[in-house]
Amino acid sequence: MPVAINVTIVGVGLIGGSIGLALRERKLANRVVGCGRRQQSLNKALAVGAIDEASTDITAAVADAEIVVVASPVASVVDHVCRVAESCRADLITDVGSTKGLICRQIEKQLSGSNPHFVGSHPLAGDHRTGPENARADLFVDRTVVVTPSEQTPDNLTQRAAEFWRSLGAKVVEMGPEEHDQAVGATSHLPHLVASALAACTPHKFLPLAATGWADTTRVAAGDPELWTQIFSQNAPAVINELDNLMEQLVKLRGELASSDWQRIQETLEKAKQVRDALGI
Amino acid sequence: MPVAINVTIVGVGLIGGSIGLALRERKLANRVVGCGRRQQSLNKALAVGAIDEASTDITAAVADAEIVVVASPVASVVDHVCRVAESCRADLITDVGSTKGLICRQIEKQLSGSNPHFVGSHPLAGDHRTGPENARADLFVDRTVVVTPSEQTPDNLTQRAAEFWRSLGAKVVEMGPEEHDQAVGATSHLPHLVASALAACTPHKFLPLAATGWADTTRVAAGDPELWTQIFSQNAPAVINELDNLMEQLVKLRGELASSDWQRIQETLEKAKQVRDALGI
Repeated sequence: MPVAINVTIVGVGLIGGSIGLALRERKLANRVVGCGRRQQSLNKALAVGAIDEASTDITAAVADAEIVVVASPVASVVDHVCRVAESCRADLITDVGSTKGLICRQIEKQLSGSNPHFVGSHPLAGDHRTGPENARADLFVDRTVVVTPSEQTPDNLTQRAAEFWRSLGAKVVEMGPEEHDQAVGATSHLPHLVASALAACTPHKFLPLAATGWADTTRVAAGDPELWTQIFSQNAPAVINELDNLMEQLVKLRGELASSDWQRIQETLEKAKQVRDALGI
Repeated sequence: MPVAINVTIVGVGLIGGSIGLALRERKLANRVVGCGRRQQSLNKALAVGAIDEASTDITAAVADAEIVVVASPVASVVDHVCRVAESCRADLITDVGSTKGLICRQIEKQLSGSNPHFVGSHPLAGDHRTGPENARADLFVDRTVVVTPSEQTPDNLTQRAAEFWRSLGAKVVEMGPEEHDQAVGATSHLPHLVASALAACTPHKFLPLAATGWADTTRVAAGDPELWTQIFSQNAPAVINELDNLMEQLVKLRGELASSDWQRIQETLEKAKQVRDALGI
C-alpha cells in the first residue's frame, strides 16, 4: 500500500480506533483523520494516538481522503457512506458493519450510477469492551475480514479493500453480502441471541453457582444492547432460520432427556465436540 | 486441619489430581494415596507429583485414610463411596460429582444405619482439558465448592468437609442436594446442553466465519461427552425444567424478530447484559 495516503475513519469506537492505531503504528498513512458526532470520543481517540486529527464535520473530514472507513453502528452506515461518497474523491470507501446484505443493497440503490467506490467489509474482530480507550493496534492481526463485493463491484475495488485489510495484519475472505449474512447469522448473531436468552433467564438466586461454564457461554451477552438490536434488525430472516434449526435440535434433546435416551444425547455431544474441537481455539 | 492425616483420592483425573497437588503443595497431608482403575493415569499422577502412592485396589488404598475423596465420574460415585465406607475408618468421605440429589439419596439408602461419614461436595472448578496432566495446585483457590448435607448429615461432618475445601483455598457454600441440582441445572447443565446444540447445528461451511463470539459461546461443548451424558442422566428433571424456560424465551424472541419488535428485543438484551455484568468476570 502506498504510504502517502490520507485515511478518514468515520466513527472512532473500538473498531475505528483500532484501525487508526494500526495505520499509525505501521506507518501506513500520511494522515489519519477521525470523524465523529461526539467531541469526547474524538478526544479519547486523539489521546490514545488512534488519529492525527479530529473533526465533527463529515464533509470536511473526508475532503482529502483517499480511503474512508465508515466504522459507525450498522444503522448509520448507509447514511454515512452516502454522505461520504458525495463529499470526497476517495478511491476506496468501506465499512465495518456486522451485517452486509441490507447495507450493500441500499448503498448501491442510493448511489446507483455515481461510481461510489464502495465495497462492504466486516472484520471478525472485536471485544465486549467498547470505545477508543480499548482500541488495540493488533486487533486485526490474524483475524478474518470478510470483504463483500456485489455483482456490480469492480474487481480492482475488491482487491483494494482486501489489500487495505491485509496491510493491518488481517486474513481476507471474499463472499457476497447475502452469503455473508447467512454465515454470520449462524456463527455470530445466533450465538449472541442464545447467550442473551440464557443470561436473561438464569434465576438471580442461582447466580452464586455460576462458574466458568456459564461465564463463557454468556460472555457475549455483555455486548451493547442497542448495537446488537440494530444487527438483529438488519439480519432477522437469517437469524430466524438459524434459530429454528437450533430450536429443532433443542426440542430433540428435550425429548431424549425426557425418555432417558442417553445414547442419542451422547451422540449429539460427540458431534458438538467434533465441531468445537475443529475450531482449534 | 491437622497435618498428620492420610488422604486417599479415588479417581486421579483433573479434579482428583488437583486435590492431590494442592494437599501436597500446601503440606496439608501426611500421605496422599491415589486410587484408580488404570495404572497409566496413576503413573501420570505420580509423575506430576499429585500423589505419594498409587494403588488399583480400592480396599487397600483407603485402609489407613482419615479422609477419602471420591473423584470418579458421577455414574461411579455411589458404588465407590459404598465400597470405601465398608473398607475404612475415615471420618470424612466426600465426592466431587456435578450432580448431588441422586448420589446422596442412593448412598444414604445403601449405607443406612452404618454411619458412613459421607457428605456430598461439588467443586465449581474445572476445565475442558481433562486428566492428571492438566491438574493444578491452585484449581480451587477462590472457587466455590458446594457442600450438600442432607437432613441426616451431622453438623460436624458438614463442617469437616467445609474445612477440608477451605484448606485448599476454596469458598464453601452449603445447600441441600436437591437445591444444588436445581441451581446447577440452570448455571451449568443447561449452558452445556445449549452450547453443544449450538456447535452441533452450526453448518460446517460457515465455520471459517466463527470468531471469538462463537468460540466463547460453544467452549464447554469440547467437554467429555460420556461424562456429560452421565451428568444429564442424573439431573434430567432440573435440566428439562430450565430448558423449557429457555425455549419459552427463545420462542418469544423469535416472535419479536419476525414482527420487527426491536424495542422488546433490546429490552431482553438489556436484561441479559445486567445479569451478565453482575457476574463481574
